[in-house]
Amino acid sequence: MSNESGMNYAPKGRPNKVCKEGEFIFAAVGLDHGHIYGMSNGLIEAGAQVKWVYDPDPEKVAQYIKAFPQAKAARSEDEVLSDNSVNMIASAAIPCDRYAIGLRAMDAGKDYFTDKPPLTTLEQLQQAKDKVKATGKKYAVYYSERIHVESAVFASQLIEEGAIGRVIQVIGMGPHREGKGRPDWFYDKKRFGGILCDIGSHQIEQFLYFTGAEDAIIQNARVANYNHKNYPDFEDFGDVSLLADNGATGYFRVDWFTPDGLSTWGDGRLFILGTEGYIELRKYTDIARDPEGDQVYLVNNEGERRFPVRGKVGYPFFGALILDCLNRTENAMTQEHAFKAAELCVKAEELAQQVEK
Amino acid sequence: MSNESGMNYAPKGRPNKVCKEGEFIFAAVGLDHGHIYGMSNGLIEAGAQVKWVYDPDPEKVAQYIKAFPQAKAARSEDEVLSDNSVNMIASAAIPCDRYAIGLRAMDAGKDYFTDKPPLTTLEQLQQAKDKVKATGKKYAVYYSERIHVESAVFASQLIEEGAIGRVIQVIGMGPHREGKGRPDWFYDKKRFGGILCDIGSHQIEQFLYFTGAEDAIIQNARVANYNHKNYPDFEDFGDVSLLADNGATGYFRVDWFTPDGLSTWGDGRLFILGTEGYIELRKYTDIARDPEGDQVYLVNNEGERRFPVRGKVGYPFFGALILDCLNRTENAMTQEHAFKAAELCVKAEELAQQVEK
Repeated sequence: MSNESGMNYAPKGRPNKVCKEGEFIFAAVGLDHGHIYGMSNGLIEAGAQVKWVYDPDPEKVAQYIKAFPQAKAARSEDEVLSDNSVNMIASAAIPCDRYAIGLRAMDAGKDYFTDKPPLTTLEQLQQAKDKVKATGKKYAVYYSERIHVESAVFASQLIEEGAIGRVIQVIGMGPHREGKGRPDWFYDKKRFGGILCDIGSHQIEQFLYFTGAEDAIIQNARVANYNHKNYPDFEDFGDVSLLADNGATGYFRVDWFTPDGLSTWGDGRLFILGTEGYIELRKYTDIARDPEGDQVYLVNNEGERRFPVRGKVGYPFFGALILDCLNRTENAMTQEHAFKAAELCVKAEELAQQVEK
Repeated sequence: MSNESGMNYAPKGRPNKVCKEGEFIFAAVGLDHGHIYGMSNGLIEAGAQVKWVYDPDPEKVAQYIKAFPQAKAARSEDEVLSDNSVNMIASAAIPCDRYAIGLRAMDAGKDYFTDKPPLTTLEQLQQAKDKVKATGKKYAVYYSERIHVESAVFASQLIEEGAIGRVIQVIGMGPHREGKGRPDWFYDKKRFGGILCDIGSHQIEQFLYFTGAEDAIIQNARVANYNHKNYPDFEDFGDVSLLADNGATGYFRVDWFTPDGLSTWGDGRLFILGTEGYIELRKYTDIARDPEGDQVYLVNNEGERRFPVRGKVGYPFFGALILDCLNRTENAMTQEHAFKAAELCVKAEELAQQVEK
């Protein structure tokens, strides 16, 4: 931002494809979570091709091919891993299984791109770190609530331009709709990793990212099962207070209490407080005002502004990730950052006090 | 709410005067904080008369009389306290001095109504409690951000009607504008009590009130001086995580970072999460949408709704307080609740980690 431009902040425009047809090939392995569709879309829009899809459940494979007819059903994971033309394995398996697919992918010489949470224990984290070191491959993570949300992308541009000064605090709210027909693993903490590890991982990643921190301490963490007593291993609520290594503070709440009457799956909010102003994101809807999400509110010394940015900024993460894989750079997200967010969400879950069972 | 009424929640209408002319007389003693005007207005609108005003600073007295010409300047606090027609002493002295005025008021046989925070140390709290017990008088507190905010009053009506089920969490944000020309005591922690004690007291009171809790634990508390290094005894940021005795959780942030461009003094928000829905209050403005505050957002299983309630619900606290004083009841707020909020805000301040100086 030039000082002259005053309130003339504006979205920078959607990014283009970063590579030519055939330059970057990926395969989808593990389709347990619907995020695999967002991951695939993001990659394809940025120039990638999907060649293979594999899951033990043929129904999930058929559904994937309906969305991406260019993908071929593989007979086994091995068939995918042994194809030297494949650059990347993308996976949205059950959270506790994600690391194992990643280890095999990296052993086969491929970069790995997993849904969040990327893993569910510190032992898995150590194995993933060791494998990255041994193979030189990437263990990238789809922290979708920042990288695949245009309002969050625009917020990072505003902060870079100095619109709110030094970032001193981030508050996140990540309510989610439980909905009907969730699979068994959804209610089994051992498999989904706990609410702070699972949907909390978005929040911790955002906190590190928007504060520009390299590390943070979990100062307080809580989980609860307030209203799902029939699922004793479920957590329907969690919250965490964080302190970053640069002095910034953070707090977030995640929960499964999205009411049926909300127009979308969750009223995700983010409040970024700076010394010179603040930003609020109404990511997925602007309740009782505008069902279109990606509304960015900026208040600073120049006034109050609303930026409806849906369709205007795109998702630069995916193109940057493809280029990182092709050029062995780290512009989309550093490996250290991706692992640090994973580490903190596992630690938050381990430290959490269960305030109601 | 009847189940038939569906979404037909509606404000209940403004309360009327509760007593006749001359039945309830108060005096304003200690005018350091502008809240004395809100306190006086609230009482007068509910039927009280102001008879006296006293402050050591004649300028503050003159200003008060300009707003309330019916008030007579007293020559001393004693002149006020010795007037048997006075039912109540209202005070917005410097926070650390508020309890002492209260003790003298109760000793003189009067109820006391103080601005928040009502006191700044646990020793003061014990003295106030002892005096209440010894005299049978009231030590009422002006927790204005709930009792003098129509959206907060309406929220309590919605909760009572069951609009969001069981309240399981409250998140509050209480940013304030520092502004220019603040007195010395504003920057001196010994006198204002610390940010968690001062503006945090509103938040703790709200948390106890909206969760229906009788007590709570401070699980994490932080203060910081991020951007006022020239005032080393100041705190420009604070936050707290609370756990109520009924299992509900709470978090709040308070700060002095309201940007110059905001249309009002602070973008106070409250998010009340229930098992069946949630309520958001945009108390003083609805940024970049509507400069009129008192906007209540309700999302539950029936849909999303916005209620602009300014001018529609009034402030039942004041009439209830007058009647409590006349009838020796506790309908406006129990003494225990007022003291519990005070206790927790002092404890939060004592426990707080200073994350940046």
